[in-house]
Amino acid sequence: MALRVALRNKSALPGLLSQLSSCSHGRVCASSVFVAQQRSNSTSPKMTVDFDQSTGVAVMRMKSPPVNSLSLDFLTEFCISLEKLEMDKSCRGLIITSTLPKVFSAGLDIMELCGTSPERCGELWKAVQEMWLKLYSSNMVTIAAVNGSSPGGGCLMALSCDYRIMADNPRYTIGLNETSLGIVAAFWFKETMSNTVGHRTTEMALALGLLYNPNEALKTGLVDQIVPEDKLMTTAEQAMAKWLAIPDHARQITKSMMRKQIIDKLTAKREADIQNFVGFITKDSIQKSLRVYLEMLKKRKASKKTAP
Amino acid sequence: MALRVALRNKSALPGLLSQLSSCSHGRVCASSVFVAQQRSNSTSPKMTVDFDQSTGVAVMRMKSPPVNSLSLDFLTEFCISLEKLEMDKSCRGLIITSTLPKVFSAGLDIMELCGTSPERCGELWKAVQEMWLKLYSSNMVTIAAVNGSSPGGGCLMALSCDYRIMADNPRYTIGLNETSLGIVAAFWFKETMSNTVGHRTTEMALALGLLYNPNEALKTGLVDQIVPEDKLMTTAEQAMAKWLAIPDHARQITKSMMRKQIIDKLTAKREADIQNFVGFITKDSIQKSLRVYLEMLKKRKASKKTAP
Amino acid sequence: MALRVALRNKSALPGLLSQLSSCSHGRVCASSVFVAQQRSNSTSPKMTVDFDQSTGVAVMRMKSPPVNSLSLDFLTEFCISLEKLEMDKSCRGLIITSTLPKVFSAGLDIMELCGTSPERCGELWKAVQEMWLKLYSSNMVTIAAVNGSSPGGGCLMALSCDYRIMADNPRYTIGLNETSLGIVAAFWFKETMSNTVGHRTTEMALALGLLYNPNEALKTGLVDQIVPEDKLMTTAEQAMAKWLAIPDHARQITKSMMRKQIIDKLTAKREADIQNFVGFITKDSIQKSLRVYLEMLKKRKASKKTAP
Repeated sequence: MALRVALRNKSALPGLLSQLSSCSHGRVCASSVFVAQQRSNSTSPKMTVDFDQSTGVAVMRMKSPPVNSLSLDFLTEFCISLEKLEMDKSCRGLIITSTLPKVFSAGLDIMELCGTSPERCGELWKAVQEMWLKLYSSNMVTIAAVNGSSPGGGCLMALSCDYRIMADNPRYTIGLNETSLGIVAAFWFKETMSNTVGHRTTEMALALGLLYNPNEALKTGLVDQIVPEDKLMTTAEQAMAKWLAIPDHARQITKSMMRKQIIDKLTAKREADIQNFVGFITKDSIQKSLRVYLEMLKKRKASKKTAP
Repeated sequence: MALRVALRNKSALPGLLSQLSSCSHGRVCASSVFVAQQRSNSTSPKMTVDFDQSTGVAVMRMKSPPVNSLSLDFLTEFCISLEKLEMDKSCRGLIITSTLPKVFSAGLDIMELCGTSPERCGELWKAVQEMWLKLYSSNMVTIAAVNGSSPGGGCLMALSCDYRIMADNPRYTIGLNETSLGIVAAFWFKETMSNTVGHRTTEMALALGLLYNPNEALKTGLVDQIVPEDKLMTTAEQAMAKWLAIPDHARQITKSMMRKQIIDKLTAKREADIQNFVGFITKDSIQKSLRVYLEMLKKRKASKKTAP
Repeated sequence: MALRVALRNKSALPGLLSQLSSCSHGRVCASSVFVAQQRSNSTSPKMTVDFDQSTGVAVMRMKSPPVNSLSLDFLTEFCISLEKLEMDKSCRGLIITSTLPKVFSAGLDIMELCGTSPERCGELWKAVQEMWLKLYSSNMVTIAAVNGSSPGGGCLMALSCDYRIMADNPRYTIGLNETSLGIVAAFWFKETMSNTVGHRTTEMALALGLLYNPNEALKTGLVDQIVPEDKLMTTAEQAMAKWLAIPDHARQITKSMMRKQIIDKLTAKREADIQNFVGFITKDSIQKSLRVYLEMLKKRKASKKTAP
């Protein structure tokens, strides 16, 4: 099994660990490496990975209640799981989905951005970059089986896959809605979306912080297919079979050709992008609007609990 | 009121005036500065600006008969009006429309290009650049309420806004039709259109000088919405309210991210672009085809007047 | 007649001949120049060119059985024919079609890539580059009248024209299906397609090696129009008349503006692109998958012949 093999071979994770475990001053924090590895098995609390040797397809099920927020812990686990699968030559495809009701992933963990030190904000952002870099450039066929709402970073995760299928429930929404929180999608969020739905749709969607229901998402090209929720996983498997019918090397070179430019752009500007994010997110005005947003979420939650 | 404030503070207009009033050899023509300022109040002959403090939205009504041509005078006024609104922090949105029947703006003033000195042609083109640079990068939400035909530079003006609503009258047309006159859309016209409707649609439209009726313009993405003419302004106000619901700073950073690349490109090549335009437009063959075009317009006009 | 004039003036073909006839070490192979010229008249075995002086439109009919494969001989003739028409100022438009039943062009000649020397592979690739460079940048209006299937390089040929009309026969398909053969579309194939149908459609199409039937091709933008097969040529002539209504110089400058960037990119990297192709195609693993593909084609052909 892929995960076991990877765990046995510690040197199999150099890329990720050197990224995620290095402190902001460049020193490696040995303890966090260890913790990260401990956390990264298939029974970790934040996601389950099932790999079927017979098909070569792994299914990653995100299960970090309440909403699969992209916290530093979550992202660390996500990236380690992804890197292990990536290194297992027998794993050719990955389906990503959620075990939580109604939500795929709610995106960036706003709680972790409120009143947090610049260092911690920087680490979180570095982990978001890492998730995108790994997923968008994955050698595996990646399919998002979007079985719930997927705003912000959750939408980015879906957009970074090769193919997106969404459960046809009109209450689910997907989109890069950063501006509605008073924050801004990074340039590589923007270019990932723009590569999917074009420049003008992206311009309007980002400016207005639009969230699309499944029908709208299909029409606009944000997802490739919508199906009844109980057909989601079988549809994902059928789509995967079509993608896997193409020889890996030809598909991988083609994928790299389509995506390399943005990946190289972020790779070249990674530190500046972190500084830019940290400088923005730690501004008083932005911190204030994030707190307002969190208050609103709490009230909404409370009112739901007391509703008859 | 925004305009009054700006008029009181003459130093509020340095950017524009340094652009528009400098002669081709770089000397400032003091008299033209003065004239431009005189002209720039809200009761100027070429446009009216009404600013509603309660909503933060200004409406600019172009009223330069017969067809709101983009003459040097018109463009100077347009840019000064725009710059004043831009500098008024309380003005968050701008709706641009026309008071003339059947026409939004007919685009570049061909008359000003016929038999004109290279210097004058260059000044006109610099003013067109200035209009686009200001409008495409405006910090305000800009909505074009296109209540009439809008060929060439008129289409560019609409494309430079954040949102376009067109009156649903099948006799109105919109498009970059330069080639049908024997001239060529500049690269920044092309990229503005391409950012809106994509590369292929732009390629065909520019090659064939296509003008679209409202239905076609909607289908192709050249406008975002079409409504009966008597609903145009209320629809524009409703759309504006949606755009203004997003925090300004987040929307502005997002807009800049989407548009900065082309703006920087023209800013860097501005003088070369002027030389290129002047060199082209003053060619004997081009001058001849412009005269042919003007003759055709005159005949068409005459035949309408004598029609029963 | 254009062709006769060009044949009389041998110096009229310097660009092409210097490209195609130079050996890999830069020396000119005089004999191949001669052969190429001999072959290049309008009664050549691989294509017929009919030029109508009264309309200014030439029709090139590809007739290289069984499937108009892009062999080195075919491409050499194609480019010489194209260059001659290009140099004849009276020829303003070109319609490209096939005389073979059911096929427009089957694309790259796989036979010429199997067990072939790197030098020969490089020459073939250089000729494919030349075809694309000439066609994509042609000063003429170019219309593909796609009267049969058009995979791989055949699709590229159609995509390089200004306008594509396809015969509405559901058994015909078009697309860049390289990956299904285990090979990869070059970056300029990719960008030509992407400029036509957008980034995301291209990403999926290339990854999956998709072939579209006429209805799908129309919907996705791969072709501009579909018509019954017996209306194909008259429709192409009508479309041509519309394109020719625009003054040549304005159309040509516009076309160059839309396409120059990719053309310059390949021109700058031409040798590296050849080395890249040769290095890839001569790999053992790729050679093996090409042989498997050829075997499959042979079996399919044999089974058709013996079918009742």
